[in-house]
Amino acid sequence: MAEEQNKIKTILPEPTLRRLPWYLAYVNLLQKQKVEYVSSTQIAKEIKVDASQIAKDLSFLNLKGKTRIGYEVDTLVCVLADFLGFKEIHNAFMVGVGSLGGALMRDSGLTQYGLNIVAGFDINKDIVGTSICDVPIYDMKDLAACRKETGTEIGILAVPVEHAQEAADLMIACGLKAIWNFTPYRIKAPEDIVIQNTSIYAHLALIYNRMQDNSKQG
Amino acid sequence: MAEEQNKIKTILPEPTLRRLPWYLAYVNLLQKQKVEYVSSTQIAKEIKVDASQIAKDLSFLNLKGKTRIGYEVDTLVCVLADFLGFKEIHNAFMVGVGSLGGALMRDSGLTQYGLNIVAGFDINKDIVGTSICDVPIYDMKDLAACRKETGTEIGILAVPVEHAQEAADLMIACGLKAIWNFTPYRIKAPEDIVIQNTSIYAHLALIYNRMQDNSKQG
Repeated sequence: MAEEQNKIKTILPEPTLRRLPWYLAYVNLLQKQKVEYVSSTQIAKEIKVDASQIAKDLSFLNLKGKTRIGYEVDTLVCVLADFLGFKEIHNAFMVGVGSLGGALMRDSGLTQYGLNIVAGFDINKDIVGTSICDVPIYDMKDLAACRKETGTEIGILAVPVEHAQEAADLMIACGLKAIWNFTPYRIKAPEDIVIQNTSIYAHLALIYNRMQDNSKQG
Repeated sequence: MAEEQNKIKTILPEPTLRRLPWYLAYVNLLQKQKVEYVSSTQIAKEIKVDASQIAKDLSFLNLKGKTRIGYEVDTLVCVLADFLGFKEIHNAFMVGVGSLGGALMRDSGLTQYGLNIVAGFDINKDIVGTSICDVPIYDMKDLAACRKETGTEIGILAVPVEHAQEAADLMIACGLKAIWNFTPYRIKAPEDIVIQNTSIYAHLALIYNRMQDNSKQG
């Protein structure tokens, strides 16, 4: 069984991985509404993904719907949340406790998705030594020691863009294995480091641009 | 000239639009370091995008590098920031002032990228009537009136997932033209409404999954 699980995870294509949280969000909702079963057609209608694609995605997790009944909602919620890693606790450092970094430390939603921010790091003497929501903020030079002590593997990068690469280099040198990059800078890293870019400001450009196109057509 | 600009914007492919903010982040950095010129090869090395692709992307904005010298940094910064809409002010509503919504209202970074949150909306009586960073929080039922009064077109959606569609429907009915969706729910909307999904929690699943793959290979 363990081997089978491994096999599943290795072959899972990224587009599937990106869709699974959408399914989870929807079936979570159904669970709250005490719905017991859901068909791929019904999910398809809500999520705007082909029903056949949904069935295929879920089959990667060995989830199969019953004819005419569909998938058991409780099972979907449980298997999806488990597979996506939302049920485990993943320790993380916040590197850069400015406006965005501080805001993310205040967002309890991250905890619900398994992310536990255990410490913040900054170079600003005014905030080093303070805490946000009971999470202490240390000097950047304590990163290595703190990493060893806590075994933390994920670093959230939210420093000013001009320090992004330098901070990423330090995080990697200290032994962090994954960087969740909130800066708009494309950081460089060795291949075995997981990099996830979430440049929310870049999304603003997409919104502005599409709005302009719409208003031209309208 | 105005017509030419319009033409450029219409033909710009989305992958190009997604890359432009990366170029801007990098040339902003160069500008701070007082660098005057940059070649596409140099940008390519930093950003890990093909030099020819960069030249092509920039040519959409009528930006052409000079042989052996490259692009003028000041011009790149100016044209990119202007084209991406970061220099204008775009009013926005925060719909759902919970943990994430409140955090986003505290992030001054959004202002730097042209987004001006003018009001927050929630159903929680405890926070209606209060404010965050001088931005007032109103009852959801005041959304329509407030939209008319301010002419706001962008709504940031950060309500609990079970209210996402309902809140989106209200936002559209009130006349908002774009929804920046921070919930993991795939909201449905008419085609002329701009939807940008930024489900940061879904990105966590990608990080967890890739870390697991790496540790298996390692």
